[in-house]
Amino acid sequence: MGSSAQEIELTVYRGSKDGTIIQSKTHQGPLRGDQVLVKITHSGLCGTDEHYRSADQVLGHEGAGVVQEIGPDVDTLKKGDNVGFGYLHSSCGHCAQCLTGKETFCPQRVMYGTGDFDIGSLASHAVWRESYLFKIPENIPNEYAAPLQCGGATVFNALEMYDTRPTDRVGIIGVGGLGHLAIQFAAKMGCEVVVFSGTDSKKEVAMKLGAHEFYAIADVKDLSNICKPVNRLLVTTSHQPDWTLYIPVLAPEATIFPLSVSNGNLVIPYMPLLQNGIRIQGTIVAPREMHEQMLRFASVHDIKPIIEKFPLNKKGIEEAFEHLDKGEMRYRGVLVAQS
Amino acid sequence: MGSSAQEIELTVYRGSKDGTIIQSKTHQGPLRGDQVLVKITHSGLCGTDEHYRSADQVLGHEGAGVVQEIGPDVDTLKKGDNVGFGYLHSSCGHCAQCLTGKETFCPQRVMYGTGDFDIGSLASHAVWRESYLFKIPENIPNEYAAPLQCGGATVFNALEMYDTRPTDRVGIIGVGGLGHLAIQFAAKMGCEVVVFSGTDSKKEVAMKLGAHEFYAIADVKDLSNICKPVNRLLVTTSHQPDWTLYIPVLAPEATIFPLSVSNGNLVIPYMPLLQNGIRIQGTIVAPREMHEQMLRFASVHDIKPIIEKFPLNKKGIEEAFEHLDKGEMRYRGVLVAQS
Repeated sequence: MGSSAQEIELTVYRGSKDGTIIQSKTHQGPLRGDQVLVKITHSGLCGTDEHYRSADQVLGHEGAGVVQEIGPDVDTLKKGDNVGFGYLHSSCGHCAQCLTGKETFCPQRVMYGTGDFDIGSLASHAVWRESYLFKIPENIPNEYAAPLQCGGATVFNALEMYDTRPTDRVGIIGVGGLGHLAIQFAAKMGCEVVVFSGTDSKKEVAMKLGAHEFYAIADVKDLSNICKPVNRLLVTTSHQPDWTLYIPVLAPEATIFPLSVSNGNLVIPYMPLLQNGIRIQGTIVAPREMHEQMLRFASVHDIKPIIEKFPLNKKGIEEAFEHLDKGEMRYRGVLVAQS
Repeated sequence: MGSSAQEIELTVYRGSKDGTIIQSKTHQGPLRGDQVLVKITHSGLCGTDEHYRSADQVLGHEGAGVVQEIGPDVDTLKKGDNVGFGYLHSSCGHCAQCLTGKETFCPQRVMYGTGDFDIGSLASHAVWRESYLFKIPENIPNEYAAPLQCGGATVFNALEMYDTRPTDRVGIIGVGGLGHLAIQFAAKMGCEVVVFSGTDSKKEVAMKLGAHEFYAIADVKDLSNICKPVNRLLVTTSHQPDWTLYIPVLAPEATIFPLSVSNGNLVIPYMPLLQNGIRIQGTIVAPREMHEQMLRFASVHDIKPIIEKFPLNKKGIEEAFEHLDKGEMRYRGVLVAQS
């Protein structure tokens, strides 16, 4: 571990009060314990980053890169491995959630956006703990692997952890960063995939990705006239949908997964939930075992995000944010390291 | 079936626009098919009846009585059997829910409060279908059996259908008609029962019924200081609770069961649901197999409602409603047939 004794200078990109991206330097001392130094090659840009753009912290949580150095206790990774990392940096290891493969819900977890957490994938490097890094399957290039680390994990987890069946009709609201991945995962799971989007503009892409049905809802008053009920409903839009439109197309005992990060309250008609046995299931990214399954499943079924690339520097990040803000990203922005 | 050829006069108690209870007569022709004529001995008075008090329909959906006559196709019930009936009068028999023991969510179900449904347990008799009647276990007197038909079924179903474990901490908000039964069922299931109520006035009763912990919440600002997290939260009050008080005492991956009938929207903080993997599970009464299990469980474990009795006539019903309105019922009103 000779080289780990040296101090390394990292370039990081931080949010700031007025939303300007701040490029700065931090220094990393010799790696300790299970720490791994990852040279970042790619970072996805997720809607959640918008929420932290005005926070004084390093941005980005969809990282893919190459192991550059390992701490003294690391034994499953070696220099040169392609790895991904996402939201979760560590968890306590001994609570009920950690002991049952649900460590994303560990009350002591350390993740992007919590407390004084200050590591991100919009950087030249990140120091991450060995057991929270994921080897990227050989047939997935890093530029595609990056958006899977949060977007892919989020939609796969909603489907897989909560027992979606291949016989389910899976509704997906929104064809964006999450939605275009959800279509692919649900289709490859054998589900009947039903997509709801504002207009027909994304219909062709959605059908190509595996959707079986597509509904442009902008002028629709009653969806239940045109669409059979769905058993699962993944909400991937950046705002909460008009629930009165979707409740009539929920099958009895359907599950709603509100996946978008959103402030304020969930406001949803009350009695239809009770009368139809509807479940609302909160979920966020994926525990590690589920994350590994997601990568394996994506590898086996050749699931890839559709990406737009930007240079991983201040200007590139700002451009990518602007594109995302305008709703123009098709369908996930990926920042690409320039060296 | 000689006697079934006669026409029978039934006395029924109906709601009306201004909430006055209307006593009237209806006539029942000869019983057909699987119809059963039940002479009602007791009817519970549920909070839901309040919602239909201003509707022009027969009230009551917690019935217990004695089989008085059976239709030509009835083969499991006989004259003199003690039977209970609740919310559900029929279901289609062939949809996914009916075929999997979830017929309370059948889209074609006929139940109290739906459409032009006009049968209720606040009556001298009711005609009900054989397979939607429940034999009352011998050790449960009809006056106790009545409130189990909706109140008991509702809380038991929430616990049992959704896989409550004996190792769960079960929170129960409210010690009323539903709450005082939920305490007993959860306690007998082996759960750690945690009761939340406005003041200490019901503490002694709650503890006697099996609660392990009791929190008077009227002046509490932060429950998480005094109460460890619960895995299940049954909301049995007639209004939605102050969610900001309860969310901090939800364990990761906890399930909320909003059981009270309430108009308007469910309004609940959004991000804590996602971050902690919280589930909101809509549920209403119990499918028949679950209802049978409820009665068996109540019989085995000697679970009985605490009741206040009123005569089953116009005056008695009005008095019972008044008592319920004022929040004075301890803990379930039961109307008792006078002959």
